[in-house]
Amino acid sequence: MLDRFKVPEQDKIYVPVDKITKVTENILKTSGVTEQGAKNSTAVLIGNDLRGVETHGVSNGLRLYVESYASGKYNAKPNIKIIKESATTANIDGDGGLGAEIGPMAMELAIEKAEKYGMGSVVVSNTGHLAGCGYYPLQAVEKDMIGQAMTSGGAGLTVPTWGSEPILGTNPIAWAVPTKDMPPFLFDVATTQIASNKISLARRTGAKLLPGWITDKNGDPILEEVDAPERTGRHGESNYHLLPFGGTRENGSHKGFGLGMVVEIMTNELSGMGPAPILMHEGSDFFAAYSIDAFTDVKKFKQDMDNLLKRIVESKPASGYERVVYAGYLENEEYLKRSKEGIPYHKEVIEWFENHCSEIGIDCELR
Amino acid sequence: MLDRFKVPEQDKIYVPVDKITKVTENILKTSGVTEQGAKNSTAVLIGNDLRGVETHGVSNGLRLYVESYASGKYNAKPNIKIIKESATTANIDGDGGLGAEIGPMAMELAIEKAEKYGMGSVVVSNTGHLAGCGYYPLQAVEKDMIGQAMTSGGAGLTVPTWGSEPILGTNPIAWAVPTKDMPPFLFDVATTQIASNKISLARRTGAKLLPGWITDKNGDPILEEVDAPERTGRHGESNYHLLPFGGTRENGSHKGFGLGMVVEIMTNELSGMGPAPILMHEGSDFFAAYSIDAFTDVKKFKQDMDNLLKRIVESKPASGYERVVYAGYLENEEYLKRSKEGIPYHKEVIEWFENHCSEIGIDCELR
Repeated sequence: MLDRFKVPEQDKIYVPVDKITKVTENILKTSGVTEQGAKNSTAVLIGNDLRGVETHGVSNGLRLYVESYASGKYNAKPNIKIIKESATTANIDGDGGLGAEIGPMAMELAIEKAEKYGMGSVVVSNTGHLAGCGYYPLQAVEKDMIGQAMTSGGAGLTVPTWGSEPILGTNPIAWAVPTKDMPPFLFDVATTQIASNKISLARRTGAKLLPGWITDKNGDPILEEVDAPERTGRHGESNYHLLPFGGTRENGSHKGFGLGMVVEIMTNELSGMGPAPILMHEGSDFFAAYSIDAFTDVKKFKQDMDNLLKRIVESKPASGYERVVYAGYLENEEYLKRSKEGIPYHKEVIEWFENHCSEIGIDCELR
Repeated sequence: MLDRFKVPEQDKIYVPVDKITKVTENILKTSGVTEQGAKNSTAVLIGNDLRGVETHGVSNGLRLYVESYASGKYNAKPNIKIIKESATTANIDGDGGLGAEIGPMAMELAIEKAEKYGMGSVVVSNTGHLAGCGYYPLQAVEKDMIGQAMTSGGAGLTVPTWGSEPILGTNPIAWAVPTKDMPPFLFDVATTQIASNKISLARRTGAKLLPGWITDKNGDPILEEVDAPERTGRHGESNYHLLPFGGTRENGSHKGFGLGMVVEIMTNELSGMGPAPILMHEGSDFFAAYSIDAFTDVKKFKQDMDNLLKRIVESKPASGYERVVYAGYLENEEYLKRSKEGIPYHKEVIEWFENHCSEIGIDCELR
């Protein structure tokens, strides 16, 4: 994550992992979620916070989930069903549960199928927020597999290349790959210039948005540095829209747009939910696992991965940079650091926790 | 493809598809390739030319292949072997054959596995040039499946984000998806700002390269419009290097770099060949097929695809643009046009054909 998105030092409160985990689980359970459901969702959110992906941790997510359970938008006790299945595939109806609760189970099913048949993939629809894609492929890595995840939440945000109407969501995609001793490869990105959540994060931290990151309300790219706008209106009525990664056609935005379309198709069309940009539903998810053992020798594979990744981090940086890294490397550094020192949350986030716990009458030992 | 890469009108010679197909097959057979091998490779190359992807058609490719067969770099009669196989996966040793000859067979095998088990994927190593990725996933589309292909040819071209040493290749990736009546979705891109071949094409057409497309010899991005350089030296010794798509970190080049790494891993590490950036071998390929029927109702899926794709092309363009398209739409227009009017080749390409046919003593009826 670029420095501009990080929580300023004076606003940080460090919270140990076990404390934030316990309080988050208790908040979800008080919302009516089952013991296992709360464990799943919390593992996803705190996993993201530990890797420094605070856009998809408890800071932005938890208060929305609590509201959505309270309003009945999310189902706290979903009846999760497989509606179609083959040797290697499954299509799951999430019955309105939180995506982050169902995602870990769906990935587990893909892994089981890959153990038996070499590959497995599972689509999930009719769920709430997945909380990003990065957590799930790492489940496959634990089993010496390559993992992949995509999700299409929130259509009506991103303009196509050459287009002016916001159509796709931020449609993130992730792959993770096991290694021998090096930090695992974890590529986890939105297919837009910036994730939607980064705009609210930028508002909180006072960071500016760079040229070519968003469009004005007419869909024309804003080509100067601007303050993160307060969102007014939804979809076509919004005062700004997102751009596919690349930004402009000349700089390759058709690549971001095309990959965003792949995510829309592999989730909403493949699950049978139909196009989110038309039906404006909550979006669907796709999870896949590839057993390395089905292709080649696992031990050699992991050594080759280490050699490849060392080649990257030992290469000479461009002028003005201190080092070269690969996807997942900095996240792993952050993971190790935060596991030891605690997770630095913005003080406003901790205040929300304390207020909410006080409202629902549960303990909130975070400081 | 941007207009700047197209063949200028006064340099075009239109050749009917059946004529260029016949001559290309005959040239490959004269190089020692089998009847079926020549048919496969020619279908890939002419398929690319028909879709307007002339960077990966006969113009750049054929003369290199002919030279590589003559020098013994490519094996004209490869003994293609499956070295590891599971229900859904296979690992193929291409025995030094042309990638474009073996690719169609590998994709066919992935499709057969997906028909039986829901998904199939095949890695291929020890082959020559694949001629891009776009042709192969379209084979899956013919069978109502989603197809995917990746290839990692030519390491030592692209600098990582924050890096100065050229490490990865252009590492292209493609997905294709069937539709009901709309042109199929075909997303087929290099994970660099521009494909390597586009630089030679730009030299031939006199097009300029845009800011942030390549680096200087030190790995620093060139941030002004420049003439396409003549390549001098290989890898670290070259006078320019490629940038991952995005261009700079601020503009998201870590997304292009990360996706390029996914391609390197899913081809070279998963096939057991090991890292191309270290071993500097020819690279490997990955093909996958997903049976839509294993996930959801195929008829509904194809109607949903049509609805989604219509939503895109019927949306309002941004100011300065005439229409909005999706990946594969313009390629399909070109395909229909060129199938009828012939393929416009640069006159220099036709001269090469005529000279080469004359040298090897075969007919060359193209004009």
